[in-house]
Amino acid sequence: MSVDVFELAHEHEQVVFANDPATGLQAIIAIHSTALGPALGGTRFYPYASTDAAIEDVLNLSRGMSYKAALAGLDLGGGKAVIIGDPGTLKTEALLRAYGRFVQSLNGRYYTACDVGTFSVDMDHIARECSFVTGRTVAHGGAGDSSVLTAFGVFQGMRAAAEQVWGEPTLAGRTVGVAGIGKVGRHLVRHLIEDGASVVVTDVHQPSIDSVREEFPPVQAVADTEALVASPLDVYAPCALGGALTDEVVEVLSARIVCGAANNQLAHPGVEKQLEDRGILYAPDYCVNSGGLIQVADELEGFSFERAEQRASGIFETTRSVFELAKADGVAPAIAADRLAERRIRDVGRLRGVWLS
Amino acid sequence: MSVDVFELAHEHEQVVFANDPATGLQAIIAIHSTALGPALGGTRFYPYASTDAAIEDVLNLSRGMSYKAALAGLDLGGGKAVIIGDPGTLKTEALLRAYGRFVQSLNGRYYTACDVGTFSVDMDHIARECSFVTGRTVAHGGAGDSSVLTAFGVFQGMRAAAEQVWGEPTLAGRTVGVAGIGKVGRHLVRHLIEDGASVVVTDVHQPSIDSVREEFPPVQAVADTEALVASPLDVYAPCALGGALTDEVVEVLSARIVCGAANNQLAHPGVEKQLEDRGILYAPDYCVNSGGLIQVADELEGFSFERAEQRASGIFETTRSVFELAKADGVAPAIAADRLAERRIRDVGRLRGVWLS
Repeated sequence: MSVDVFELAHEHEQVVFANDPATGLQAIIAIHSTALGPALGGTRFYPYASTDAAIEDVLNLSRGMSYKAALAGLDLGGGKAVIIGDPGTLKTEALLRAYGRFVQSLNGRYYTACDVGTFSVDMDHIARECSFVTGRTVAHGGAGDSSVLTAFGVFQGMRAAAEQVWGEPTLAGRTVGVAGIGKVGRHLVRHLIEDGASVVVTDVHQPSIDSVREEFPPVQAVADTEALVASPLDVYAPCALGGALTDEVVEVLSARIVCGAANNQLAHPGVEKQLEDRGILYAPDYCVNSGGLIQVADELEGFSFERAEQRASGIFETTRSVFELAKADGVAPAIAADRLAERRIRDVGRLRGVWLS
Repeated sequence: MSVDVFELAHEHEQVVFANDPATGLQAIIAIHSTALGPALGGTRFYPYASTDAAIEDVLNLSRGMSYKAALAGLDLGGGKAVIIGDPGTLKTEALLRAYGRFVQSLNGRYYTACDVGTFSVDMDHIARECSFVTGRTVAHGGAGDSSVLTAFGVFQGMRAAAEQVWGEPTLAGRTVGVAGIGKVGRHLVRHLIEDGASVVVTDVHQPSIDSVREEFPPVQAVADTEALVASPLDVYAPCALGGALTDEVVEVLSARIVCGAANNQLAHPGVEKQLEDRGILYAPDYCVNSGGLIQVADELEGFSFERAEQRASGIFETTRSVFELAKADGVAPAIAADRLAERRIRDVGRLRGVWLS
């Protein structure tokens, strides 16, 4: 079974297959939209089971980047790339640079960045062949660890949700459950503790839990995500894998708010409605987790942490707008977020039709 | 049934799917090789039955362009593009210009030109969005009717074949059968008559025959290609559709030489061997019909007919080299042509490895 690229990519502008047998490079670059600016999105290096699986992933991911960048108010479109193969065995300087030449061939319609399987040092290799690379090492003007502003943005979105539910934009006195305390989750815990929240965490990696509890002794830990979602929580913050919000999780959740850093939290379409029906306010994932994109995108202007942080603080206001539109239109916040993103793509995108010499 | 792009394009560098729903554009640009320079090849506008059929066609055609350009001694790689749809109903200024923007997005790795379903006026539209267009109208610096040098080149190749078979590079006193007297065939007839050959023609279009016989009264005509290949001929020149050299045709052919303008004359691999076994010298199609490519490629330097004609006259020497290598290696000329093309791609292609600042 193989897919028809034009059928599957009917919303996309361009899909580029890049092949370099000498290095083993097989890459696909998908450009979903450039209505707001050049398409930006990371390069995922992953051993896909088939070309079709890679195509489907890169098309979905690039579409998601259009919405994230649009809602974050950036002058960027949505793109993404995948390199097919096991990065552990296939990744070489030559392959990365061959890939860089293909990114370069698009002459700035697509900017790449880190994603699963690629790191800042890889971006430095790619940049030796290519001018359109973000996520570089700090020594090369890179934005550094983007989990810093991802967590900051999620915290801003959570404050907006708290304001909506309890009238005040603070988590002080609330109990927040954080599932996944990797880099982003850990920064989030710090913001929450500083704000006066009680924090309960879980993670599959025990050393991460130990280390967080050492730094923040009041933090509680539970055995697993199942235990976490069943505990008494005011806020649930999924910060690990996608698909965290299943029918079962929504069923047992005592939290009034869901707001976390994970991508694609809704396990299937319709979960946003179930959350609403149970009176749980869902802060859409791509709305609140865009701080990392904002941080990386800032490299395009010569990285300034202060400027990027200021932009990421705007996630508070954006999340508020999403909740307001949801109320006004009588739809779930996830739907409202899509509408806001699509509206900006349409309204700002058309401005290039106004000629400037 | 769908194809795996990486599987089918394992020899290619890059395959680009371009999609613009507003204009209905669905285009595929295939870049086979840029070892010798930017990929050049026409844009075919054709109502393919499926995306897969379009992919297969564009991959085959772009590969052919690599070999043609390499053997013609051009500093060009091989590429080709297809636009899926009926040009009669789908072709609009907006669609052509949308396509032009995608060609532009490759920033000169691919130059386009006319092909089935596209014309010089279309290239002028594409060029309003794109700097990488050949085959333009004469008013815009275009090379004009490229059948002129296509026919001239075929004639040069035929002279080289005559030298090989009869010791003298001339068709004087020989009988040449020309199947298809469209633009190229007609120019070829003129060269043959001027050289002192007897010419027999056939064409599905009676007015073409009448018009050629009016201009060149000694030209004979026969009812169809079947009759032509069965007549007593010294040279057979297929100048119409591909696949002219079937098992049946090779069987009945009295000619000592096959040399014509049609693309892909060998109906299947192995026919080159059958021709050899029957003592028929085959001048490889893409070797002798590259005059049109030479003419169009000359636009890249600002078109000069004299310069292009001089280059096309080199087809005599190239065809001679093909025959020499065929003898030396003990292979059919079609195989020798491939070897010469591949050798040039390798030997000249590696020179970019020598750094120049």
